[in-house]
Amino acid sequence: MAMANRNLKQVRIVRNVIPNKSGSDMVSPPQQQMVTPGKGMKRSLDVSEGDPSLMPPKMDEREEERGVTIDIKSFLKPGEKSYTQRCRLFVGNLPTDIIEEEFKKLFDKYGEPSEVFINRDRGFGFIRLESRTLAEIAKAELDGLVMKSRPLRIRFATHGAALTVKNLSPVISNELLEEAFSMFGPVERAVVIVDDRGRATGKGFVEFAAKPPARKALERCSEGAFLLTTTPRPVIVEPMEQFDDEDGLPEKFMQKTQQYLKEKRNPHGLLSLESI
Amino acid sequence: MAMANRNLKQVRIVRNVIPNKSGSDMVSPPQQQMVTPGKGMKRSLDVSEGDPSLMPPKMDEREEERGVTIDIKSFLKPGEKSYTQRCRLFVGNLPTDIIEEEFKKLFDKYGEPSEVFINRDRGFGFIRLESRTLAEIAKAELDGLVMKSRPLRIRFATHGAALTVKNLSPVISNELLEEAFSMFGPVERAVVIVDDRGRATGKGFVEFAAKPPARKALERCSEGAFLLTTTPRPVIVEPMEQFDDEDGLPEKFMQKTQQYLKEKRNPHGLLSLESI
Repeated sequence: MAMANRNLKQVRIVRNVIPNKSGSDMVSPPQQQMVTPGKGMKRSLDVSEGDPSLMPPKMDEREEERGVTIDIKSFLKPGEKSYTQRCRLFVGNLPTDIIEEEFKKLFDKYGEPSEVFINRDRGFGFIRLESRTLAEIAKAELDGLVMKSRPLRIRFATHGAALTVKNLSPVISNELLEEAFSMFGPVERAVVIVDDRGRATGKGFVEFAAKPPARKALERCSEGAFLLTTTPRPVIVEPMEQFDDEDGLPEKFMQKTQQYLKEKRNPHGLLSLESI
Repeated sequence: MAMANRNLKQVRIVRNVIPNKSGSDMVSPPQQQMVTPGKGMKRSLDVSEGDPSLMPPKMDEREEERGVTIDIKSFLKPGEKSYTQRCRLFVGNLPTDIIEEEFKKLFDKYGEPSEVFINRDRGFGFIRLESRTLAEIAKAELDGLVMKSRPLRIRFATHGAALTVKNLSPVISNELLEEAFSMFGPVERAVVIVDDRGRATGKGFVEFAAKPPARKALERCSEGAFLLTTTPRPVIVEPMEQFDDEDGLPEKFMQKTQQYLKEKRNPHGLLSLESI
């Protein structure tokens, strides 16, 4: 068997699972997972130091006995570019006396950032990590972390240079879309959206590395006709509306307005049409 | 500092980065990362065995010198449920003589699956892993893997019990949406979609664990009025249309139809309106 995805050659996974009830012989016996630090390890800026909730759980805890240990280095998916705007986190509710070094140190264990910005007066910052996966892990771990009695609020930053494209011919692939729009400037990601059977929907999106090429693409495609194939079917280009359908609206961020208090007083229920 | 996300207490990350040009003192010196196997390790069914491309790269390779090593155990995001339909992979182009044990072994290092299914005659299967992240890693690693000169094709399975909801009051949070729809059956995930400033859009979705509760919710909400708050604003419920905007349409899966060959003959280009 040959590996298809060279990007992932650094991924190493070790099984660590207790036998399940079915007694399948596919399951390996309980294994002790140990990480022996090398010489330089003591200088590791691991934020888990001293925080018991971040320490590996004790071996007598049942949770520890099963699970999977995955070592990821530079986790980029096949074809994924590094340090894109998709790896950029917005960090809100920062202590107003935080300095850039402290902010950077928070994210230290997720690899070298390519962009670090803080606005101390307004208590927010941005940081850009190497891959989306690293940024997702950082967000999941640090969102809600209490610093000086303020919980950090971490979200993915809005992509500032994303365009939706419509009226695509069914012969257009991700690669052709990217190649075509690269005439306006560097493209981070181009996707032709498909349905649940893998068929092209005629829609897609293009994420540029910066705003100017996105603006240029918008202008040129409205002034003229941008043809991606020999067919006279010009692509329709629009700024992408950004929505969050991952985190959505957690209860803890609901503003307790009058409307909120009034509408939520009673529980929900189904009314039949007759009762209305 | 207190950790907010208990789900993530098992995550352990170790820095392993060479000093960069700027010589920032935030960067720790090169570190050697070693994993010492415990007693049971020899029986680990690690598929990397014998495959040099899956072995850890040698230390003299530059790539190895920088990067981040992340140990993940049972990686669930805050609030994420395990073994949901979001963790379910479709595996196509299987060798027709594959047996269930071989299929299961492919995914062995990603933890214990809750569902394993193969259709040998038609060369496909499904497998459900513990978390979305594990499934993403498995997909990224195994998609395209050549077995008996056929490349595996791995995709996330379509969610069979997902509904979109509309006309939501702005006071409804993810939690309230989930609680309300739980009257029809177990809910895996409920999200109120927000815009780029975190404001409710009035839209959302509900993913049930199985089809029957989804059907029940669809029926009841069209027969009657499902009120989530005290306001007479019944929620509109529809089956969710499923699209793939992650993988999209890669060139390698394009069917080389007549239309494809004809339309792609010439390169793309911008035409000014005058020239049309």
